Amino acid sequence: MTSEPRQLAHPGFLGLRLGKMLAGSGVEINGPNPWDPQIHHPAFYRRVLTGGSLGLGESYADEWWDCAQLDEMYNRMLRSPRLRNRAFLAYLAPYLLSLFANLQSKARAFQVGKAHYDIGNDLYRNMLDERMVYTCGYWRNADNLDDAQRDKLELTCAKLDLQPGMRVLDIGCGWGSFAKYAAETRGVQVTGVTVSKEQVELGSQMCAGLPVSLRLQDYRDVNEQFDAIVSLGMFEHVGHKNYAAYMRVAHRCLKTGGKFLLHTIGKNHSRSGVDPWIAKYIFPNGEIPSLRQISKSLENLMVIEDLHNFGPDYDKTLMAWFANFDRAWPQLQKNMPARFYRIWKYYLHVCAGAFRARNLQLWQLVISKGAPVGAYRRPDM
Amino acid sequence: MTSEPRQLAHPGFLGLRLGKMLAGSGVEINGPNPWDPQIHHPAFYRRVLTGGSLGLGESYADEWWDCAQLDEMYNRMLRSPRLRNRAFLAYLAPYLLSLFANLQSKARAFQVGKAHYDIGNDLYRNMLDERMVYTCGYWRNADNLDDAQRDKLELTCAKLDLQPGMRVLDIGCGWGSFAKYAAETRGVQVTGVTVSKEQVELGSQMCAGLPVSLRLQDYRDVNEQFDAIVSLGMFEHVGHKNYAAYMRVAHRCLKTGGKFLLHTIGKNHSRSGVDPWIAKYIFPNGEIPSLRQISKSLENLMVIEDLHNFGPDYDKTLMAWFANFDRAWPQLQKNMPARFYRIWKYYLHVCAGAFRARNLQLWQLVISKGAPVGAYRRPDM
Repeated sequence: MTSEPRQLAHPGFLGLRLGKMLAGSGVEINGPNPWDPQIHHPAFYRRVLTGGSLGLGESYADEWWDCAQLDEMYNRMLRSPRLRNRAFLAYLAPYLLSLFANLQSKARAFQVGKAHYDIGNDLYRNMLDERMVYTCGYWRNADNLDDAQRDKLELTCAKLDLQPGMRVLDIGCGWGSFAKYAAETRGVQVTGVTVSKEQVELGSQMCAGLPVSLRLQDYRDVNEQFDAIVSLGMFEHVGHKNYAAYMRVAHRCLKTGGKFLLHTIGKNHSRSGVDPWIAKYIFPNGEIPSLRQISKSLENLMVIEDLHNFGPDYDKTLMAWFANFDRAWPQLQKNMPARFYRIWKYYLHVCAGAFRARNLQLWQLVISKGAPVGAYRRPDM
Repeated sequence: MTSEPRQLAHPGFLGLRLGKMLAGSGVEINGPNPWDPQIHHPAFYRRVLTGGSLGLGESYADEWWDCAQLDEMYNRMLRSPRLRNRAFLAYLAPYLLSLFANLQSKARAFQVGKAHYDIGNDLYRNMLDERMVYTCGYWRNADNLDDAQRDKLELTCAKLDLQPGMRVLDIGCGWGSFAKYAAETRGVQVTGVTVSKEQVELGSQMCAGLPVSLRLQDYRDVNEQFDAIVSLGMFEHVGHKNYAAYMRVAHRCLKTGGKFLLHTIGKNHSRSGVDPWIAKYIFPNGEIPSLRQISKSLENLMVIEDLHNFGPDYDKTLMAWFANFDRAWPQLQKNMPARFYRIWKYYLHVCAGAFRARNLQLWQLVISKGAPVGAYRRPDM
């Protein structure tokens, strides 16, 4: 192995500085391995050292550098004990810059709906599984995305022990994939809320003929009682300032003795803030919770019966999404800017690497209200 | 139903005050139900209103009052939404009075060993199951204490995926029941530490011939590396000031990629302190953790892979212990003060009621070090 650059851009002084930071991570600038970044533009080093995460992501979209295994590059960097606590990495790793405003106020909540979920259903129809589930699949017994998502929905229904006729609230219902599955297989009635107009429209079509009602509504405005509540991949949009309010909504909407399944990405610490690149290009106003924050917001309110961490399954899910997206790109690009391909590729790979490095977790929590009698038993699957 | 006293002691003004506090809980002073307390001594009311939890427990030992279903009395009181947040209950419910000193310093850690666990092995031999497991059993598939404890040990070994030849550390090893079971069924070597001399002596006899070594040692003095760590029902003695230190010990003693199973009682809030009666008569220096405290102590150190709450199984375990204790009392009383019977009965029933009311939880957490590859799968049982 050699540290000589073999591409256009000579690292120079700034490159050496960046290279030193990476020492011991197994990632080498212009190195020989597929996870080593290859630098094509001489200003790359300055852009990353001054612009942090934003500079890294934007320069990738600009084709200033490349990497055959972007996911593995991130996995290795995030696993490096030396890098894990460096300020440099702070910018690379999702969710850091502290934000003092309430970015997830009602007034702002619909922004993410517009920016992320209304990009166009075409993208998600091609990228996701046949049911259009935009959350982590469950790969314990599955070997393809369709099965992993079906198994996740089945697991979710089983954990909630849904029975015919029950009324279920779905906070952040997406395109109604859970609502449809639960109504079809369990005979329940589902009310779903989302902040995306496109999701309500396509979701309502997909659930036609079923006792499912999807609404364009902020979760804070729901005030009815349900037998069970589910929230899959929506808590990442709530923000730490609203965790307590979110849990109070779940509490007031859940019948005594009922169960609430919370499915969310989690992080390993409680510093707030988000990665600026992710915030700008992917999820405006998002924030990943820690278990400490979640348990704080539930104190003396509801009881955590079960916590199931299947974070590494998100790695597989994201890589499956990328494979679908990549395959569909020749068709998708007719209606999308060329630059979008690299932005989306970068997003899916960075996140896959972060789950692989165990920097991010995926939790399903079963939460109960009103001190149910008897121990909760997680279904075996 | 009548609120007239039918026993010796007339409630008077203080009794009315106490009665008002209980209104809506379903518990009535001198009421007709088996969970209603029957007051025999006129000074009972003053003693409870001035002495709180300590007065209640001590007056029970003094036979100033009685209750056919003490466990149900506590269950009903702790379930009452009105009582749950009253200062009065604060004294009844375990663990409240704030303690500022480090009650669980090394210098004090051996106190509980002497006070609680060295009471005499005779008591525990009669009260516990055949393996002498002094922690919550697992009653999913069991209908008696012996099976519930065997299933708990089996579950624990399965969750840690113990393989022949592994070296396992048991923090708070008791009489070596886990060590014996794991060595016999999994072929592992176990090192156990405890602060009770009697536990080391009897435990070492019980594990004779097996690759098990039990030591009288503070957990903070362990500094070797193990393939796996287990700690069953010891964290309740650690104290919130030492949670971070405890986790650092577990971290330094665990090999990278290894798993640590933490089995502990949990509470629903993060106020510190202990119930003064429990502290005086049962567990000196104990403190029940919250999930918020546990997750805080693990941040950026280790990852929680799984949390399994089977609190209601502790209710069954405690009631089974009481049945054994009660049956053995005619023989036990030859070497024990008469007053001990009511103290011990009170302890087991109050705790059973608190688990039944879901005021207390029992958590098994599987914790990993060094970002293992792949999702953790809880064994089905």
